[in-house]
Amino acid sequence: MLNTIFDFTGDTSGEWEVICMKTVKGDSLPPVSHLTKTKGDLVQSQSGIWTLKGIVSNLRYTEKEEKEKLVAIQEDLGRPTATFAAFIPIRKSEDWWNLAQDERRKIMENKSQHTQTGMKYLPAIARKLFHSRDIGEPFDFLTWFEYAPDDADPFEELLHTLRNTEEWKYVDREIDIRLKK
Amino acid sequence: MLNTIFDFTGDTSGEWEVICMKTVKGDSLPPVSHLTKTKGDLVQSQSGIWTLKGIVSNLRYTEKEEKEKLVAIQEDLGRPTATFAAFIPIRKSEDWWNLAQDERRKIMENKSQHTQTGMKYLPAIARKLFHSRDIGEPFDFLTWFEYAPDDADPFEELLHTLRNTEEWKYVDREIDIRLKK
Repeated sequence: MLNTIFDFTGDTSGEWEVICMKTVKGDSLPPVSHLTKTKGDLVQSQSGIWTLKGIVSNLRYTEKEEKEKLVAIQEDLGRPTATFAAFIPIRKSEDWWNLAQDERRKIMENKSQHTQTGMKYLPAIARKLFHSRDIGEPFDFLTWFEYAPDDADPFEELLHTLRNTEEWKYVDREIDIRLKK
Repeated sequence: MLNTIFDFTGDTSGEWEVICMKTVKGDSLPPVSHLTKTKGDLVQSQSGIWTLKGIVSNLRYTEKEEKEKLVAIQEDLGRPTATFAAFIPIRKSEDWWNLAQDERRKIMENKSQHTQTGMKYLPAIARKLFHSRDIGEPFDFLTWFEYAPDDADPFEELLHTLRNTEEWKYVDREIDIRLKK
């Protein structure tokens, strides 16, 4: 078991109940009624109907000032009041990955204000990013959001804003799975 | 088998003969006489005396202009004339990983000219970087260099230059393994 690797298993029972599962772009995933997040390891375990694996890594675009702000205001996953969650696996196109670091940063921040947008909704909407691209997984990122039912409207607004950015034009597969504890 | 994951196995026989193995900093690795690089998968296979696993990823610091230069002049591994190689696993300190993206970039390029230095020795000295930090491995990076025997001196110069940079102050474990095909 590693502290950096997590398995997200979709199945007929589990920790989180699936309220809604929608294919936003690209190929769908088989429907499941529950999702469980567990500490994983590098073994390609296939439990449940499907398992997606993601790795916690260092922040790859965030600059000093942004990082300091994030650390000061963000909250961890697992707050008792955060009974709503969203699990959104996404993949970005080859065009995205062919860009250099400064080009990706420019699109993410200067043009799309990804970090600024997420920050607006902190600490109410906790976010966690898991990396999947380099380990042969079907998605590049698994994104996880947790919030209290009262923050459901701001969460929709956050998603709407992100999906209308230039960055999102590079997303070629996206599944939106809403969860309740 | 994945095209992005590689196992480096140290053993008593194998593809590359170990000419010299030196602990530059931190804990040593058990001595081996041969090293073999194979396509791996996520299973934690322990073959040989030790196995180190690394993942090929996108370039995380390289900017557009540098990337275009690199792509134009670098050569792949496996050239028949490149019968000398160096396998150098390194780990960087927590201080490094606590820095933000722009701080790490500043140390690597503005202050240490990491990419510029490597570029000076292209295409003669082919380089490949494998990432290990996020998959629970003992090193953060496995670096691999390949060159013809005639380029052994320039290679020493390249290493000497890199090891004297500000970036290298953050390296807290480094093993230098020289190989011959």
